[in-house]
Amino acid sequence: MPLPATPALTTDCVIFDGRGRVLLIRRGHPPFAGAYALPGGFVEIGETVEAACRREVDEEAGIGVSGLRLVGVYSDPTRDPRGHTVSVAYLSMLRHGGIPKAGSDAAAAEWVSDWRALPLAFDHARIIADAEALKGSD
Amino acid sequence: MPLPATPALTTDCVIFDGRGRVLLIRRGHPPFAGAYALPGGFVEIGETVEAACRREVDEEAGIGVSGLRLVGVYSDPTRDPRGHTVSVAYLSMLRHGGIPKAGSDAAAAEWVSDWRALPLAFDHARIIADAEALKGSD
Repeated sequence: MPLPATPALTTDCVIFDGRGRVLLIRRGHPPFAGAYALPGGFVEIGETVEAACRREVDEEAGIGVSGLRLVGVYSDPTRDPRGHTVSVAYLSMLRHGGIPKAGSDAAAAEWVSDWRALPLAFDHARIIADAEALKGSD
Repeated sequence: MPLPATPALTTDCVIFDGRGRVLLIRRGHPPFAGAYALPGGFVEIGETVEAACRREVDEEAGIGVSGLRLVGVYSDPTRDPRGHTVSVAYLSMLRHGGIPKAGSDAAAAEWVSDWRALPLAFDHARIIADAEALKGSD
Protein backbone atom coordinates (compact mmCIF):
# COMPACT_ATOMS: atom_id res chain seq x y z
CA MET A 1 0.00 0.00 0.00
CA PRO A 2 1.55 3.34 -0.96
CA LEU A 3 1.95 5.94 1.74
CA PRO A 4 -0.68 8.69 1.66
CA ALA A 5 0.11 12.13 0.27
CA THR A 6 1.30 14.48 3.00
CA PRO A 7 2.82 17.97 3.03
CA ALA A 8 6.33 18.19 1.58
CA LEU A 9 9.06 18.10 4.21
CA THR A 10 11.79 20.75 4.32
CA THR A 11 14.43 21.84 6.77
CA ASP A 12 16.02 25.19 7.57
CA CYS A 13 19.08 26.06 9.62
CA VAL A 14 19.67 29.09 11.84
CA ILE A 15 23.43 29.45 12.33
CA PHE A 16 24.83 32.10 14.66
CA ASP A 17 28.52 32.93 14.70
CA GLY A 18 30.39 34.19 17.75
CA ARG A 19 29.52 37.79 16.89
CA GLY A 20 25.76 37.21 16.80
CA ARG A 21 25.55 37.23 13.02
CA VAL A 22 23.25 34.84 11.15
CA LEU A 23 24.22 32.94 7.99
CA LEU A 24 21.79 33.89 5.21
CA ILE A 25 21.63 33.14 1.53
CA ARG A 26 20.07 35.15 -1.24
CA ARG A 27 17.61 32.96 -3.10
CA GLY A 28 18.51 32.25 -6.71
CA HIS A 29 15.07 31.04 -7.80
CA PRO A 30 11.38 31.73 -7.12
CA PRO A 31 9.62 31.93 -4.81
CA PHE A 32 11.21 34.96 -3.16
CA ALA A 33 14.02 35.11 -5.76
CA GLY A 34 16.66 37.59 -4.59
CA ALA A 35 15.35 37.72 -1.04
CA TYR A 36 17.42 36.77 1.98
CA ALA A 37 16.56 33.40 3.48
CA LEU A 38 17.90 30.73 5.78
CA PRO A 39 19.87 27.95 4.11
CA GLY A 40 17.68 24.89 3.76
CA GLY A 41 15.64 22.79 1.39
CA PHE A 42 13.69 19.61 0.82
CA VAL A 43 14.39 16.43 2.77
CA GLU A 44 15.20 13.49 0.53
CA ILE A 45 13.64 10.08 1.00
CA GLY A 46 16.20 7.94 2.83
CA GLU A 47 17.99 10.67 4.79
CA THR A 48 17.28 11.92 8.28
CA VAL A 49 16.08 15.51 8.67
CA GLU A 50 19.30 16.40 10.49
CA ALA A 51 21.37 14.99 7.60
CA ALA A 52 19.28 16.96 5.10
CA CYS A 53 19.88 20.13 7.14
CA ARG A 54 23.66 19.63 7.17
CA ARG A 55 23.64 18.77 3.44
CA GLU A 56 21.66 21.86 2.45
CA VAL A 57 23.88 24.22 4.48
CA ASP A 58 26.93 22.69 2.85
CA GLU A 59 25.45 22.81 -0.66
CA GLU A 60 24.08 26.34 -0.44
CA ALA A 61 26.71 28.07 1.68
CA GLY A 62 29.76 25.79 1.87
CA ILE A 63 29.61 25.73 5.67
CA GLY A 64 29.78 22.62 7.84
CA VAL A 65 27.45 22.51 10.84
CA SER A 66 27.08 20.11 13.74
CA GLY A 67 25.39 20.03 17.12
CA LEU A 68 21.98 20.77 15.63
CA ARG A 69 19.28 21.65 18.16
CA LEU A 70 15.61 21.52 17.26
CA VAL A 71 13.99 24.97 17.13
CA GLY A 72 10.50 24.13 15.91
CA VAL A 73 8.24 22.75 13.23
CA TYR A 74 6.54 25.28 10.94
CA SER A 75 3.49 23.96 9.15
CA ASP A 76 1.07 26.78 8.30
CA PRO A 77 -0.45 25.64 4.97
CA THR A 78 0.04 29.16 3.53
CA ARG A 79 3.72 29.58 4.43
CA ASP A 80 5.01 28.55 0.98
CA PRO A 81 3.37 29.74 -2.26
CA ARG A 82 4.43 26.52 -4.04
CA GLY A 83 2.15 24.39 -1.90
CA HIS A 84 2.02 23.00 1.60
CA THR A 85 5.52 22.55 2.95
CA VAL A 86 6.45 21.81 6.56
CA SER A 87 9.84 22.95 7.76
CA VAL A 88 11.82 21.46 10.63
CA ALA A 89 14.19 24.19 11.83
CA TYR A 90 17.47 23.66 13.68
CA LEU A 91 19.92 25.91 15.49
CA SER A 92 23.68 25.64 15.23
CA MET A 93 26.26 27.83 16.97
CA LEU A 94 29.65 28.32 15.32
CA ARG A 95 32.25 30.30 17.22
CA HIS A 96 34.26 30.88 14.06
CA GLY A 97 31.80 30.79 11.20
CA GLY A 98 34.17 30.44 8.28
CA ILE A 99 33.78 32.08 4.89
CA PRO A 100 30.53 31.17 3.10
CA LYS A 101 30.63 30.15 -0.54
CA ALA A 102 27.33 30.33 -2.42
CA GLY A 103 26.31 27.16 -4.23
CA SER A 104 23.34 25.24 -5.67
CA ASP A 105 20.17 27.35 -5.29
CA ALA A 106 21.87 30.32 -3.58
CA ALA A 107 22.85 33.48 -5.46
CA ALA A 108 24.92 34.59 -2.47
CA ALA A 109 25.75 33.47 1.07
CA GLU A 110 26.92 35.75 3.82
CA TRP A 111 27.04 36.44 7.56
CA VAL A 112 24.45 39.11 8.29
CA SER A 113 24.41 41.41 11.35
CA ASP A 114 21.26 43.40 10.64
CA TRP A 115 18.97 40.49 9.84
CA ARG A 116 16.22 42.00 12.02
CA ALA A 117 15.92 44.86 9.51
CA LEU A 118 15.73 42.68 6.39
CA PRO A 119 12.64 41.34 4.69
CA LEU A 120 13.15 37.59 4.76
CA ALA A 121 11.59 34.86 2.61
CA PHE A 122 8.82 32.61 3.93
CA ASP A 123 8.40 32.69 7.74
CA HIS A 124 12.15 32.83 8.27
CA ALA A 125 12.03 35.97 10.44
CA ARG A 126 9.87 34.08 12.93
CA ILE A 127 12.15 31.03 12.77
CA ILE A 128 15.21 33.18 13.57
CA ALA A 129 13.35 34.83 16.46
CA ASP A 130 12.45 31.41 17.86
CA ALA A 131 16.06 30.24 17.46
CA GLU A 132 17.31 33.33 19.25
CA ALA A 133 14.95 32.59 22.16
CA LEU A 134 16.25 29.01 22.33
CA LYS A 135 19.85 30.26 22.24
CA GLY A 136 19.12 32.72 25.04
CA SER A 137 17.58 30.01 27.23
CA ASP A 138 20.93 28.26 27.76
CA MET B 1 6.48 22.97 -10.75
CA PRO B 2 5.37 20.12 -8.50
CA LEU B 3 7.00 19.82 -5.11
CA PRO B 4 9.68 17.13 -4.90
CA ALA B 5 8.97 13.77 -3.27
CA THR B 6 9.92 13.82 0.40
CA PRO B 7 9.37 11.42 3.31
CA ALA B 8 5.76 11.09 4.43
CA LEU B 9 4.87 13.26 7.41
CA THR B 10 3.21 11.81 10.49
CA THR B 11 2.53 12.96 14.04
CA ASP B 12 2.31 11.14 17.36
CA CYS B 13 1.06 12.32 20.73
CA VAL B 14 2.33 11.41 24.20
CA ILE B 15 -0.44 12.17 26.69
CA PHE B 16 0.16 11.77 30.42
CA ASP B 17 -2.69 11.90 32.90
CA GLY B 18 -2.38 13.13 36.47
CA ARG B 19 -1.41 9.64 37.66
CA GLY B 20 1.53 9.30 35.27
CA ARG B 21 -0.28 6.98 32.90
CA VAL B 22 0.14 7.23 29.12
CA LEU B 23 -2.69 7.01 26.60
CA LEU B 24 -1.99 4.13 24.21
CA ILE B 25 -3.96 2.48 21.47
CA ARG B 26 -3.74 -1.07 20.17
CA ARG B 27 -3.15 -0.97 16.46
CA GLY B 28 -5.94 -2.39 14.35
CA HIS B 29 -3.92 -2.79 11.14
CA PRO B 30 -0.38 -3.65 10.00
CA PRO B 31 2.35 -2.77 10.58
CA PHE B 32 2.52 -3.83 14.22
CA ALA B 33 -1.15 -4.93 14.24
CA GLY B 34 -2.22 -5.63 17.82
CA ALA B 35 0.77 -3.85 19.34
CA TYR B 36 0.47 -0.90 21.67
CA ALA B 37 1.31 2.45 20.10
CA LEU B 38 0.90 6.16 20.61
CA PRO B 39 -2.16 7.71 18.98
CA GLY B 40 -1.13 9.43 15.76
CA GLY B 41 -1.11 9.22 12.01
CA PHE B 42 -0.45 10.97 8.73
CA VAL B 43 -0.63 14.75 8.38
CA GLU B 44 -3.06 15.86 5.70
CA ILE B 45 -2.20 18.48 3.11
CA GLY B 46 -3.76 21.74 4.30
CA GLU B 47 -3.66 21.15 8.04
CA THR B 48 -0.98 22.12 10.52
CA VAL B 49 0.92 19.35 12.26
CA GLU B 50 -0.61 20.38 15.59
CA ALA B 51 -4.12 20.15 14.11
CA ALA B 52 -3.31 16.71 12.68
CA CYS B 53 -2.12 15.60 16.11
CA ARG B 54 -5.32 16.73 17.83
CA ARG B 55 -7.45 15.18 15.07
CA GLU B 56 -5.71 11.80 15.28
CA VAL B 57 -6.01 11.62 19.09
CA ASP B 58 -9.69 12.42 18.82
CA GLU B 59 -10.30 9.94 15.98
CA GLU B 60 -8.37 7.06 17.51
CA ALA B 61 -9.05 7.52 21.22
CA GLY B 62 -11.92 10.00 21.58
CA ILE B 63 -9.80 12.31 23.76
CA GLY B 64 -9.41 16.06 23.28
CA VAL B 65 -5.92 17.47 23.77
CA SER B 66 -4.56 20.99 23.89
CA GLY B 67 -1.38 22.75 24.97
CA LEU B 68 0.79 20.60 22.72
CA ARG B 69 4.53 20.88 23.33
CA LEU B 70 7.06 19.72 20.77
CA VAL B 71 9.00 16.64 21.90
CA GLY B 72 11.07 15.86 18.82
CA VAL B 73 11.23 14.89 15.17
CA TYR B 74 11.93 11.22 14.40
CA SER B 75 13.24 10.56 10.91
CA ASP B 76 15.34 7.40 10.82
CA PRO B 77 14.58 5.99 7.35
CA THR B 78 14.13 2.48 8.83
CA ARG B 79 11.65 3.43 11.59
CA ASP B 80 8.56 2.41 9.58
CA PRO B 81 8.43 -0.78 7.48
CA ARG B 82 5.98 0.85 5.05
CA GLY B 83 8.57 3.35 3.84
CA HIS B 84 10.25 6.50 5.04
CA THR B 85 7.99 8.35 7.44
CA VAL B 86 9.01 11.27 9.65
CA SER B 87 7.06 11.78 12.85
CA VAL B 88 6.65 15.05 14.74
CA ALA B 89 5.88 14.12 18.34
CA TYR B 90 4.06 16.28 20.89
CA LEU B 91 3.44 16.11 24.62
CA SER B 92 0.15 16.92 26.31
CA MET B 93 -0.63 16.77 30.01
CA LEU B 94 -4.20 16.06 31.11
CA ARG B 95 -4.95 16.18 34.83
CA HIS B 96 -8.17 14.24 34.33
CA GLY B 97 -7.67 12.11 31.25
CA GLY B 98 -11.26 11.10 30.54
CA ILE B 99 -12.39 7.72 29.30
CA PRO B 100 -10.86 6.72 25.94
CA LYS B 101 -13.06 5.32 23.20
CA ALA B 102 -11.29 3.42 20.43
CA GLY B 103 -12.05 4.59 16.90
CA SER B 104 -10.76 4.60 13.31
CA ASP B 105 -7.53 2.56 13.13
CA ALA B 106 -7.43 1.65 16.83
CA ALA B 107 -8.61 -1.74 18.12
CA ALA B 108 -8.49 -0.38 21.68
CA ALA B 109 -7.53 2.76 23.56
CA GLU B 110 -6.57 2.87 27.21
CA TRP B 111 -4.57 4.59 29.92
CA VAL B 112 -1.51 2.44 30.59
CA SER B 113 0.59 2.49 33.77
CA ASP B 114 3.19 -0.11 32.91
CA TRP B 115 4.10 1.21 29.47
CA ARG B 116 7.82 0.78 30.20
CA ALA B 117 7.30 -3.00 30.25
CA LEU B 118 5.36 -3.20 26.99
CA PRO B 119 6.76 -3.80 23.51
CA LEU B 120 5.63 -0.74 21.58
CA ALA B 121 5.26 -0.21 17.83
CA PHE B 122 7.79 1.78 15.80
CA ASP B 123 10.16 3.91 17.92
CA HIS B 124 7.38 4.87 20.30
CA ALA B 125 9.25 3.70 23.42
CA ARG B 126 11.97 6.23 22.64
CA ILE B 127 9.41 8.96 21.93
CA ILE B 128 7.74 8.37 25.31
CA ALA B 129 11.13 8.44 27.05
CA ASP B 130 11.95 11.77 25.37
CA ALA B 131 8.53 13.16 26.33
CA GLU B 132 9.05 12.07 29.93
CA ALA B 133 12.39 13.91 29.99
CA LEU B 134 10.70 17.05 28.65
CA LYS B 135 7.94 16.74 31.24
CA GLY B 136 10.51 16.36 34.00
CA SER B 137 12.41 19.46 32.87
CA ASP B 138 9.61 21.82 33.91
